[in-house]
Order: sequence, then structure tokens, then C-alpha cells
Amino acid sequence: MKVLGLIVEYNPFHHGHLYHLQQSIKKTRADVVIAVMSGPFLQRGEPAIVDKWSRTRMALQGGVDLVIELPTIYATQKAELFADGAVSILQDLSVTDICFGSENGEIEPFKQAVEWFNHNEGKLNDRIQLHLKQGKSYPRAFSEAYQSLSATDQLLDLSQPNNILGFHYVQSAMKRGSIINVHTITRTGSGYHDQTLSDTSIASATAIRGTMLNEDKGIEDVSAYIPSYTKDELANYYSAKGSFHSWESYFPFLQYKLMSISSEELNKIYECEEGLEHRLKREIVQSHTFEEFIDKLKTKRYTRTRLQRLLTHVYLQSSKSFVRQTLAEKKPPYLRVLGMSNNGRKYLSSIKKDRTIPVISRASESNHPAMEKDVIASQLHGLIHHPTKSTFMDEYKAIPIQFDEEKQVFR
Amino acid sequence: MKVLGLIVEYNPFHHGHLYHLQQSIKKTRADVVIAVMSGPFLQRGEPAIVDKWSRTRMALQGGVDLVIELPTIYATQKAELFADGAVSILQDLSVTDICFGSENGEIEPFKQAVEWFNHNEGKLNDRIQLHLKQGKSYPRAFSEAYQSLSATDQLLDLSQPNNILGFHYVQSAMKRGSIINVHTITRTGSGYHDQTLSDTSIASATAIRGTMLNEDKGIEDVSAYIPSYTKDELANYYSAKGSFHSWESYFPFLQYKLMSISSEELNKIYECEEGLEHRLKREIVQSHTFEEFIDKLKTKRYTRTRLQRLLTHVYLQSSKSFVRQTLAEKKPPYLRVLGMSNNGRKYLSSIKKDRTIPVISRASESNHPAMEKDVIASQLHGLIHHPTKSTFMDEYKAIPIQFDEEKQVFR
Repeated sequence: MKVLGLIVEYNPFHHGHLYHLQQSIKKTRADVVIAVMSGPFLQRGEPAIVDKWSRTRMALQGGVDLVIELPTIYATQKAELFADGAVSILQDLSVTDICFGSENGEIEPFKQAVEWFNHNEGKLNDRIQLHLKQGKSYPRAFSEAYQSLSATDQLLDLSQPNNILGFHYVQSAMKRGSIINVHTITRTGSGYHDQTLSDTSIASATAIRGTMLNEDKGIEDVSAYIPSYTKDELANYYSAKGSFHSWESYFPFLQYKLMSISSEELNKIYECEEGLEHRLKREIVQSHTFEEFIDKLKTKRYTRTRLQRLLTHVYLQSSKSFVRQTLAEKKPPYLRVLGMSNNGRKYLSSIKKDRTIPVISRASESNHPAMEKDVIASQLHGLIHHPTKSTFMDEYKAIPIQFDEEKQVFR
Repeated sequence: MKVLGLIVEYNPFHHGHLYHLQQSIKKTRADVVIAVMSGPFLQRGEPAIVDKWSRTRMALQGGVDLVIELPTIYATQKAELFADGAVSILQDLSVTDICFGSENGEIEPFKQAVEWFNHNEGKLNDRIQLHLKQGKSYPRAFSEAYQSLSATDQLLDLSQPNNILGFHYVQSAMKRGSIINVHTITRTGSGYHDQTLSDTSIASATAIRGTMLNEDKGIEDVSAYIPSYTKDELANYYSAKGSFHSWESYFPFLQYKLMSISSEELNKIYECEEGLEHRLKREIVQSHTFEEFIDKLKTKRYTRTRLQRLLTHVYLQSSKSFVRQTLAEKKPPYLRVLGMSNNGRKYLSSIKKDRTIPVISRASESNHPAMEKDVIASQLHGLIHHPTKSTFMDEYKAIPIQFDEEKQVFR
């Protein structure tokens, strides 16, 4: 039996994701597809444009059988920890194959890069330190150090965001001595960071979000790039809540938080290092908008993504001690099921005995602090919508979404 | 030379305040009038309806010569500490007379009550404890204990809010061995807590605010109860900022704060006692509005005022250790001048040598943590208005408002 594992954010689910999903199934002849998906806050340190339930429904309609939430504490991390959290979940669910999208498109260079890394870690780290001292960002230091030291035939371009993630997926799978087969598919259509919509039917999620968040445009303008069920989901979400989510809406809360917290307390927040607490407190009172704020903070050393992740930790009040304690467990403390098809449900019960991480259907089934953080993350993600009593309590009571894939209806 | 001291909030300045001011001057034949005024947050644990600068301008136009800010840490306290902070400022400014408004209207009962209290503190406190154990609020326990134990001829009704404050003014003045003459004037017109406007030209500030905050009504509906300069101030404020301040506007920030903070951290907030942290965290996710929230929290033991003060400390992130450390100094650490008339300025320079508390014209002149809290309180008070860069920085740079009382113009 072939079990395909995907690591996704689906923010929102678009034609590019669907293409990747279908190609991955074809390539691996998968019998069941599991997606580990970020919850309300994402790897690049951003609020998801719609909540995780809406994105779960898109995934199920797109053909995923089982959607598992990547705990917030892993979802909002640099590539290495994000990848390791996701791969360890997939491993625990006994997937046979993982297939990721990359700029490169060939799996060999990833494996070679990881092999090379395993034999040259000390040398590489020395060179990375050198680059960091020159004020470069970590991803850039990493990519340049690798490029200058490695002598493999098929050099992997680690300045590309999906190649970096892929490198860490492969590294994590190999490190865990797992027997998972890793595959990669070239990302088609627009690049990851593309800001504008293209002429093809595939656009980057960044471009799609940019258009959706533009008040003069909206969902109609992106409908060529998303499946009809995504369009329906987005339309329902917007009509129920009144807006999509972007950092800009959270800016008043960030202002409040950063102005009311002392520098000493701020320094206890995860990823708040090297005096960043003073920069944050100085610039927040000088900024009108989130964009202005992040522009003032950005340096060669601190990329937008790095800073957005920090601001996510600030917003969610994730302390260094809490995050480090949870990460020290080396794998996510639970598997929370967000949604499943009939096929997914059958698979899940078939592997009941093989799992080492407990499976959770409701938040209330775990009393791990990381689960408390997941609940708070969902509540604080929804805070911009003047939430009602039920919105907050829902997160405790919510059960996995059930999808009948034959009839294409939710149950 | 007669120097009159008043303790005020002017939220906003209305005919009742003007009457009190004029009667007090008449009664004491004052040559100069000093008002100690709460800043952005008030004794009953509420945001002031307009900022302190606007209320300072009202006070100067009403006839006050010198407006001093009561530091936030004293302004948001129970009657005893509020009164003591204000009286110690007035004492340091060498006032000869203090005149407060009260339900009682005669000064003797206040003096007798304080004398009685000084001789019976132990007995009174025992009785108060008894009442508290029955679940009564502190003010009620205090008033009932006094009523049942005291045998003076002219019993002071300590269930009346302005009598309580007056009692503490007199107590503080006597305790400090000051030679200040204390006077009281009967409050006319509506009662302190009256919710609706009355037929006379004097209404309670509560009723005036209630009408102003009602979107269907507004400033026009209260114009019979306020001087024309108050009306102008309010109209200017509203047109510049778009709204007045009430707890309701801060509710999203309270939701954010109470949901993101842990119970352990919440317990470190001043006045968060007896497990209140759990009640706050439980009820915040069950409430749509501030009113609903406070209604759920209210008990016989915890009055609305007591809870609002707690929520002010929560909003301003005032910890037990910070507040207690500052209060241990026994008097405010600085006198911040908010505004003065020519007369006030002359008086201030005439007493330069007699003062023990430093006078401050700009926030940046003090590095006391209480001043940092005052600045933050002003910034967080303004947060509901999508403040601009200048709004935040203004608070550091602001200098006292100068009023030419002869020409009736600001300079």
C-alpha cells in the first residue's frame, strides 16, 4: 500500500496546489494522501488568509484524505524545524512516500546536498558564521556557504525558498533513518514570491492573496487561478466574517502589545535576540501601518520572514522557555486531525497500533502546553472579527471535518 | 496668601464642576487655584472620555490656575491611595485650603469620623474583616462597620462615594500633620452615579458621558449642562479623533490581552487576587462586549469599580511589584504640570524653594518608572484612534498648556 505524505499550507488552495497533488499521486501511485498543514499562522510568519477549517475543506475537496494540523510551535519556525516537525508526523503516520514541490525538480541534488552536509557540517557552519558576521541573513549565509564549499556535480540552488524547504525535508527523513521515499516535482507557473497574477491558470499564493486583499478587486479576480470549491469557501468565509486575514488587521494589537510590554519581558519572547526588543519598541511608536513597521525593521541581517516570525511569537506570547522545552521533545506531542475522507478515516484506524504520537480529535483531548498554544493561536487569529462567544469556544469543541469523497459532500 | 487646592477628574468639565470651583474660591477667598487632575485613566477604573490635554484646557478656561497630573499609579487606586497621592501633591505645593464636594456638605462630621477612626482603627478593621468574610465589597464593609461602631452625633454616611473620598482627603491631610484647612461644599444637582440628564443645568458627569457616548445623541444633547468652552473642546476632539473614549472601544485589546496572557502572569498584575485571574480568563472568551464581560465578573464582593480598576491595571500591564514599589515611596515621585495661567505660573515660581517633589514640564525630564507608566497610559489611551506617529511621540515632547486668563486665550 502506498501512502503519500504532503507538507502544505494551502493559503489558499489553488490550481498550482491541485496540480502538485495530482502529479504526486500519479508519481507515487498513492492509495491514500495525508497532508500535514500549518494552522492559523504560517511558516513565513503570517496569519493564514482564512482559518484552518476552511483550508481543510479545500484540501479534502482537492483530494487529500487526511489533514493533520502541524502544531503552531512547529508551523511558525525556520525551514529546518518546520520540516522536521512535519516529517516526523508523516513518519508516525507510516507514509511510504513524500513528494514536495521545488524549483529544482530533481531529487538527486537534494540527496547529494544532504549527504555532503552530513560530512561537512563543521566546515559549513564555520563558513556560515563568517557570512553572518558580515551581516547577512541566515538563509543567505547558508546558501552562499554551501555554494562556495560544495563540489558536487548537481549543485542545489539553496537560495530558492522551496529548494531550502525540500533540502530540510530530505535531511529530516534521512536523519530519522526513515524508509520513506522522497520525490520532488518542479513547481510550475509563477514563482513562490511573485506579487502579480500571471496569464496561465497557475499563480503563486502570494499573488492570489495580494489580489484578494485588495479591496477594489477580491475573489472574482482570482477565480481563474483557484478551483471552484476554493472560490466558494472564500466567498462563504468573506460573507460570514467580513474580511480575510493579513498582518495589517493585527497591527493595532501589535501596537498594544509592543507598547505595553517592557523590554525585559519582550526579550523573553522566542527569537527576540541581539537587542531586537529595543528596535521593536522604538519603531512601533513611529509606524502607522504594519508595512511601514516591517520596512523600518528590515535589514540585510533580519529578513522580512525572520521578523514576521518574531512578530508572530510576540503576538502569540510564545516565550523562549516554552518553545525550547517543547522542541526538546524532538517531535510534535500530538497529531490533531482536522479533516478526513472515508478513505482517510479507514487508513487512520488501520494504523492505530503503529503510532507513537497520540492522535487527537478535539483540542480538549490534550493538556500539552503546545495544544493550549494552538487553541490560543486560533482564537487570536479570529480576534480581528469581533468574535462571538461561540467562535472562541468552537476551537475547544471542534471535531474533524468528515468528507464523503464519492458523493463529494461534507457530513 | 490663600492657595486653594482641588482634586478633580473633569470628565468632562461641566456646570457642577464650575459651580464647585466658584463656590470654593468664594468660601476660601483664594488668590490662586491648583487642581490635581487624573490623567488618561480615572479613579473608578475607566478611560477618561477625552485626553488629559483637552480636560486641562477646560480646567484653565473654567478658572483653575495650575493643573497638575495625578500620576496614573495613584489616579487608578481605591479612595484611600487616590486621596493620599493627591493631598501630598497639594501639600507640596503649599496650598492653604482644600475644598471638596460631598453629599454631606458639612466638614465637622468628616473631622469627627477621622478622629474616631484614628482611635478605633483596630476595632474597625476587625469588624471590616467580619463583613468581608460575608462576601461584602470593601467599601460596603467599611461603611457598615463604621456605622455600627461609631457613636458620634453627626454620623457620616460612608456609603456615599464623595463622602468616602472626602473622608480620605481629610484623613490624609490630618495624617500628614498638614496645616491645610479642609472645607466641603454640598454637591448640587444630580447624584454622582445618576445615569440620565436632569432638568436643571447641572447633571452628573456619568449622565453627560452616557449621552455623549450614545451615537444617536452626542454633544448637542449635553450642551445645557456644560460651559461653552467644554462644548467647543469636545466638538474639536470628536472631529479630530472620530470618537470619545469608553471601555467598550478597548474591549478587543482586553480580549487580546486576557487571552494571550497565562494565568500565572495574570496573577502578577496589581489587584489580581483570590483567583480572579481564572475568572477573567474564563469569562473573556464568553463575552461579546465590555458590558457583558463586566456583568459576568461582578459579584457582591467585587464591585464594578473594583473590577474596572483591575482591568485598567491589566490593560496598562501594571504589576504588583511595580505598583507596590512606587507606593512605598509614600508620595508621588514628581509633579507634572499639564497647564497654567499667568497667575499659576507666577505662583509656581514663587514657591520654587519650598518643594520636596521635583516639578516636571516634560515627560522626558523624569526617568522614574511611574513616569514611563504615565506615558504608556497616554499612548494606550489613544490607541483606539489608529494613532499616528506624532500622537505617540507628542506625549514625550508635550509642554504645559499656557493660558492667558485676562485675554482668555491659549498661548
